[in-house]
Amino acid sequence: MTGAVIRVSEIFGPTIQGEGVLIGQPTVFVRTGGCDYRCSWCDTLHAVDSEHREEWRPMAVDDVWSAVVRLSGGVPLTVSLSGGNPAIQPLGPLIARGRGDGYRFALETQGSVARDWFADLDTLVLSPKPPSSGMETDFAKLDDCVAMAAGHPTTVLKFVVFDDRDYAYARDVARRYTSLPVYLQPGNHTPPPPDDDSATVDIEGVMNRMLWLVDKVIDDRWFDAGVLPQLHVLLWGNRRGV
Amino acid sequence: MTGAVIRVSEIFGPTIQGEGVLIGQPTVFVRTGGCDYRCSWCDTLHAVDSEHREEWRPMAVDDVWSAVVRLSGGVPLTVSLSGGNPAIQPLGPLIARGRGDGYRFALETQGSVARDWFADLDTLVLSPKPPSSGMETDFAKLDDCVAMAAGHPTTVLKFVVFDDRDYAYARDVARRYTSLPVYLQPGNHTPPPPDDDSATVDIEGVMNRMLWLVDKVIDDRWFDAGVLPQLHVLLWGNRRGV
Repeated sequence: MTGAVIRVSEIFGPTIQGEGVLIGQPTVFVRTGGCDYRCSWCDTLHAVDSEHREEWRPMAVDDVWSAVVRLSGGVPLTVSLSGGNPAIQPLGPLIARGRGDGYRFALETQGSVARDWFADLDTLVLSPKPPSSGMETDFAKLDDCVAMAAGHPTTVLKFVVFDDRDYAYARDVARRYTSLPVYLQPGNHTPPPPDDDSATVDIEGVMNRMLWLVDKVIDDRWFDAGVLPQLHVLLWGNRRGV
Repeated sequence: MTGAVIRVSEIFGPTIQGEGVLIGQPTVFVRTGGCDYRCSWCDTLHAVDSEHREEWRPMAVDDVWSAVVRLSGGVPLTVSLSGGNPAIQPLGPLIARGRGDGYRFALETQGSVARDWFADLDTLVLSPKPPSSGMETDFAKLDDCVAMAAGHPTTVLKFVVFDDRDYAYARDVARRYTSLPVYLQPGNHTPPPPDDDSATVDIEGVMNRMLWLVDKVIDDRWFDAGVLPQLHVLLWGNRRGV
């Protein structure tokens, strides 16, 4: 169908989605390699930093799809397209292929690159990066992403929040897109080093930030914002492949 | 508008919903007193056991509604109607009143009593009780509940699962209602005694049951079932009013 080649960091699952709108839902992850961002607290550096490029495999659509079908035993579920920034990969043909087999697709991206195939997703999670990331948001690009998805997938905003500035950023961006559901997520300030997924997570610190975030939302009466932790971090720490 | 009197155990919040389809969403809880069930592992005995009846207040709709508006500062959010079994209370007028003010309503019940006002809810969570509860499910009644809600609220199934028999029960009941989304939740085998909400929760035990449940669902390829913990228990233990 296509000669598209996807740069893959890892394909794993099924497990449950740990974050945001699909939290708790069984899913297979296709994590692509490469990113146009370098967030200070990135928790998937092994899929971002070009130092790890040799671990990323260029794969044909058929091969990626075979891996997903094998892992899921051919039983349709939601495939989570993640990264890195999966929007910089040519994922349209993969989505078309999987949808033909009855699978659903969710994609999470910072919203820096818009693709027409966003319209073929079931769920688009736009996760613009707050000030603590060290990145700048290009709002014209983010607007483009929202526009590409308009009318088809469930589109939501997800914000990682470490501090008051991040929270204020989330509040401002949410006001720009009032029709989109919002999920806030406490940041993991102890992300895994790319070479050591057994590194310890400061669960207590994450939970304290979660409690702080709940209080912020309640005090502000921002009742349209959901607040959720990274469930996989609570269950499995920084371990990869789960 | 009405002379309906509601038997209230507690009204509290806003906090975040800790369970199921609305997990993480800001909400005010109206917990009613009284239940037609006595689950062996009930985690809200203070709202169930008639020994605590003197703590339940008969309240007029206006008074319940004033309390919700005060707690939420008049900013619309989702009101969670909980119990006990809230379906044995005359909640129709309260829902009508609140919807008039732009609030949304979710109700959780075991599905033993069907009400025509279920159709006025935004979310109906039917949580039939598995074998470990010691209760028997009346499927004709559960059918009635589903029928009452047909076409209006988002209706979902939620199952507390302690063991293999509970899991098999959930699987069977889900097959009876294939159009309803399913959420599975590990049980808390260390529920609060009604007089002591500072009692310790065995978080490790709950998390181990959560991991077991994820494995069950994945091994069975039951990919339509979400698996979620009780987030409030992870955050606040057995503490009441949060």
